[in-house]
Amino acid sequence: MEAKAYAVHSPTDQFAPFSFERRDPNPNDVVIAIRYCGVCHSDLHTARGEWPGTRYPCVPGHEIVGEVTAVGDAVTRFSQGDLVGVGCMVDSCLSCASCREGLEQYCERFFTGTYNGPTQEGGDNTYGGYSDTIVVREEFVLRVGHDADRLAAVAPLLCAGITTWSPLRHWNVGPGKKVGVVGIGGLGHMGLKLAKALGAHVVAFTTSPSKIEDARALGADEVVVSRNEEEMKAHSGSFDFILNTVAAPHDLNPFAALLKRDGAMTLVGAPPSPHPSPDVGNLIFKRRSIAGSLIGGIAETQEMLDFCAAHSIVSDIEMITMQYIEPAYERMLRSDVKYRFVIDMASMRGAG
Amino acid sequence: MEAKAYAVHSPTDQFAPFSFERRDPNPNDVVIAIRYCGVCHSDLHTARGEWPGTRYPCVPGHEIVGEVTAVGDAVTRFSQGDLVGVGCMVDSCLSCASCREGLEQYCERFFTGTYNGPTQEGGDNTYGGYSDTIVVREEFVLRVGHDADRLAAVAPLLCAGITTWSPLRHWNVGPGKKVGVVGIGGLGHMGLKLAKALGAHVVAFTTSPSKIEDARALGADEVVVSRNEEEMKAHSGSFDFILNTVAAPHDLNPFAALLKRDGAMTLVGAPPSPHPSPDVGNLIFKRRSIAGSLIGGIAETQEMLDFCAAHSIVSDIEMITMQYIEPAYERMLRSDVKYRFVIDMASMRGAG
Repeated sequence: MEAKAYAVHSPTDQFAPFSFERRDPNPNDVVIAIRYCGVCHSDLHTARGEWPGTRYPCVPGHEIVGEVTAVGDAVTRFSQGDLVGVGCMVDSCLSCASCREGLEQYCERFFTGTYNGPTQEGGDNTYGGYSDTIVVREEFVLRVGHDADRLAAVAPLLCAGITTWSPLRHWNVGPGKKVGVVGIGGLGHMGLKLAKALGAHVVAFTTSPSKIEDARALGADEVVVSRNEEEMKAHSGSFDFILNTVAAPHDLNPFAALLKRDGAMTLVGAPPSPHPSPDVGNLIFKRRSIAGSLIGGIAETQEMLDFCAAHSIVSDIEMITMQYIEPAYERMLRSDVKYRFVIDMASMRGAG
Repeated sequence: MEAKAYAVHSPTDQFAPFSFERRDPNPNDVVIAIRYCGVCHSDLHTARGEWPGTRYPCVPGHEIVGEVTAVGDAVTRFSQGDLVGVGCMVDSCLSCASCREGLEQYCERFFTGTYNGPTQEGGDNTYGGYSDTIVVREEFVLRVGHDADRLAAVAPLLCAGITTWSPLRHWNVGPGKKVGVVGIGGLGHMGLKLAKALGAHVVAFTTSPSKIEDARALGADEVVVSRNEEEMKAHSGSFDFILNTVAAPHDLNPFAALLKRDGAMTLVGAPPSPHPSPDVGNLIFKRRSIAGSLIGGIAETQEMLDFCAAHSIVSDIEMITMQYIEPAYERMLRSDVKYRFVIDMASMRGAG
């Protein structure tokens, strides 16, 4: 079946309409009419060739929500009309130790990105959510329990949501824990909402005093302007966990110094050039850790979606048309978005 | 009572005989005739003012073993003639959360180093084990269960032993775990012995092919020359835990890449200048951690000493006289020691 999409054909190309074939559904496939797709910074990095290995034409998008239009014969968990989501992965081996533990993102054999594949069926590229339809094997399709009228704001949960949820859960964030969230952007604003809903005492860190009110509205119990040394010192050695969402290279030491003994700071952003080397003494003298975390597994993504539906949590979004993607990228580079652009795919159907 | 010691009086001074007063024992104090004292690289850093804050005169030494010669009235756990040890700490608050958990090295109020204090009794400096006697409150005195004729080789357990034991235990090293030990020196050689005795599969990493045989003799099941990329690659993603004992600045990435998902590499050496900044992608893609660890608490030091006595584990040492300390430092700087110098305090009594 033909899919209508927006693609770039080189790092310097501008997005333009693009058509391609989606595969006919296998018995275990779900066919989804995409309604909304969030715009992740990874989309921009990939489309513009800022990370190695972009396969062109490139159709980004891995924060996908839509409606099931058809299912293969062997599909048991979904049927036509279901509201569903697809995140960053559409395949993995499903048999290695990590997959068996529900941590497909750490699959020890392969994982197929929702875009910029290769695919396991011999295709050399996967096309993502900047398109009107997608075909995904059942195991990588998520159920969306939110009300249909909030569907657009659910889309960013599929990447920004799970990327913050997974480490918050893995490092046992909950009642009685003091948790920091560094950076208030696409990831950070979800980190604040989720950490708060999980029952932690949540402190937001931002370099922008202008974001203080917003951070409180998003769930922060306290907001610290991280450039203010006095404010930082007041929290010295007091955090159980810090979720650092800032991908820009920055000094990790002032945040590491805020951790309690045995506290961990987990980085979910990969900086384009290295952070200044973190001070080892800071780690040694309190047995602190610096760790990393990658999106999340399918089971925990479903857990997060169910939690968000139950707690009425969605992303804060600005809806855009597909045609607006280039200006949206430019604004994203200036952090001029609260807090996630979401593409309304109806706009593409109209224009296609 | 007068103590005979060796001290330096400035960063450029040479060690020379020095006398000072040890306090009269408080009711909870143990008076110890020092028999042997290990020579730790920290002694050199402190004596030569390579770390900030050296208090002169400086009497280093925190790998102390000896015999109890007197006890205060309130002392219940030790009596005259007992073989005992003193490590890196002689006091802490004993009431904060860390102290109550037996992790006095992470005391949230203070911890008094065995040398280079300040003391809590108003003294401005503590003098360590390069001396013939020491007075220590009971809570910081360890019982030594080894045979008396191995006492000299027990001394390095008090710092090199516990500094490796504590992280090996904290990160659950034992049967079924694959564990790396980076660097085969004072700390590393103890790490190999202890990890092996704990039942792990132990891999030693060294830059020196000349150390391969030694590493095997110390307990390594495998030895990898870390400059050999092929050998390193063969172990990619396979380690549960890596204990990194190398304080010299070095690239952490080749070691981090050897960790499994959720694996941790713990640094026990503080480099004089930073390591190259570790790659964040290496952490993110396997949820790996880089951590630090500081010596160990009193309860776990006793646990380690008891374990070593039961498993007949001591340090590999070269015995020296107190008068040999300057050449010993020079040799230590060239890594020309297998694997720890231990000062025979009888030599000082003779010379004093």
